[in-house]
Amino acid sequence: MSDLKAWLKQRQEEVDSALNAYLPRKNASPKTIHEAMRYSLFAGGKRLRPIICLAAAEACGGEYDDAIAPACAVELMHTYSLVHDDLPCMDDDDLRRGRPTSHVVYGEGIAVLTGDALLTEAFLILADTPSNKRYSTKDYLEEFAFAGGSRKLIGGQILDLEGENKPLKKAQLVKIHEAKTAALLTSSLRLGGMAGNATPKKLQALTDFGMNTGLAFQVIDDILDVTQSTEKLGKTAGKDENVNKATYPSIVGLDASRKEAQRLTRKAMKALDAFPGKKADRLREIAEYLLNRDY
Amino acid sequence: MSDLKAWLKQRQEEVDSALNAYLPRKNASPKTIHEAMRYSLFAGGKRLRPIICLAAAEACGGEYDDAIAPACAVELMHTYSLVHDDLPCMDDDDLRRGRPTSHVVYGEGIAVLTGDALLTEAFLILADTPSNKRYSTKDYLEEFAFAGGSRKLIGGQILDLEGENKPLKKAQLVKIHEAKTAALLTSSLRLGGMAGNATPKKLQALTDFGMNTGLAFQVIDDILDVTQSTEKLGKTAGKDENVNKATYPSIVGLDASRKEAQRLTRKAMKALDAFPGKKADRLREIAEYLLNRDY
Repeated sequence: MSDLKAWLKQRQEEVDSALNAYLPRKNASPKTIHEAMRYSLFAGGKRLRPIICLAAAEACGGEYDDAIAPACAVELMHTYSLVHDDLPCMDDDDLRRGRPTSHVVYGEGIAVLTGDALLTEAFLILADTPSNKRYSTKDYLEEFAFAGGSRKLIGGQILDLEGENKPLKKAQLVKIHEAKTAALLTSSLRLGGMAGNATPKKLQALTDFGMNTGLAFQVIDDILDVTQSTEKLGKTAGKDENVNKATYPSIVGLDASRKEAQRLTRKAMKALDAFPGKKADRLREIAEYLLNRDY
Repeated sequence: MSDLKAWLKQRQEEVDSALNAYLPRKNASPKTIHEAMRYSLFAGGKRLRPIICLAAAEACGGEYDDAIAPACAVELMHTYSLVHDDLPCMDDDDLRRGRPTSHVVYGEGIAVLTGDALLTEAFLILADTPSNKRYSTKDYLEEFAFAGGSRKLIGGQILDLEGENKPLKKAQLVKIHEAKTAALLTSSLRLGGMAGNATPKKLQALTDFGMNTGLAFQVIDDILDVTQSTEKLGKTAGKDENVNKATYPSIVGLDASRKEAQRLTRKAMKALDAFPGKKADRLREIAEYLLNRDY
């Protein structure tokens, strides 16, 4: 595990460096938007999505250079979704990754435009993904735009907003988690796999791994929101309960939630049997790490 | 001109029909977002950007099928930018195309997500543009994402917000108009040209035509904001003055503004000399029509 932590840290630095190179300079005109884009993007994120994108490419025999563009693109899409979700008209959150959110620093109008700009820039960066024997820019674009669109990522946020102050059944909550969290995690893996010239069988394995890890990830997030402090999380703790939002623990209890996260992670691991030898070991380690994280 | 009006109407109907086919069904889950996307997209827009995209493709020898996907994509990007610009935290406008704006009908949170969804869907539709000898999905994607990004469309809105209540020089206003209006109009023409397999020379001609027509378009918009009624415009008239926003007429006066729009249109026409015979006649007619419009 200490080896994993060092590896994650190194990958995080590589991703940060690539993001820095892809983004317009801080003083490019208009300065406000480029400064605000960087403020939210370089706020100490764990770079989970880019790292699993790179790991998926390597599991398929691809290299860092094949997948660094989609890795950066998914991080921009993730960051845009946080900037917009934190707005007063949505989840109304002042704190993210331990710092004041975009609209607190720059005002709501600029925060909306910053999210828009991060989303648009994500697509510009995606265009830099090299084509290979099986996949081209058209495939990457369709994959990415669908995962980020009204039926997945954005649809999940809609269901989430509409679910506040309502008693939800477990199946409804799972649907929200799938769209809001698992879809982009899965797409990060799929884009990495595609950039790594994955066979259809391996791409399916990455998809199954992603859906299950993604659902486990959100169950753990719900647990941590109840059990951890704001300081530890770097975002407002107890938030779900405050806005009367249904969560996994609120529906099935803490113990059953932990068991569900374990079950989903086992299922995710099983999917990785499609990869020979040690090829997918980093993905296995990451799934284990995400299950046991405390922030 | 009556021939042009009939042709524009027919094109508008073709575009509406294609948009309807591309968009997720109104009752696709989650219903709220898909209904809201359609509410803003089918609000009786003139479809100017899609129509010039199609006309540019045809001027280059391409066909309707080559350019209908980018034509729809630019309309979605235009509509998303209106939905976000109308938000209370931006231009705070209640009326657009004669109807209540998205946030008035659905609330601010849903309106932000609706804009996000239209933008993301625009990229999904763009992926449907056929590649040809000179251009591929990668080219279309780079063109589109750059025009919509922080240095162009979004940058223009930032400059616009920052310019409120400040005395602007003419050069600063032109810079805002270029980014906010001319960039996406130009990109509509360029995408159409690229989809129509344009030679580099013709693509440059479309670019010059677009920049000049785009600037003329915004000067006319500024004039109409002063001289026409809210009823006629379908959006709040006198808006610029109310928020103390610098406009072309406020800087150089109405007469000089009209002359400037004429000069820009003549320059735009000149660029079309690169097209032989009648190939670019529709673009010429549209430029003339835009110059003389009264709403």
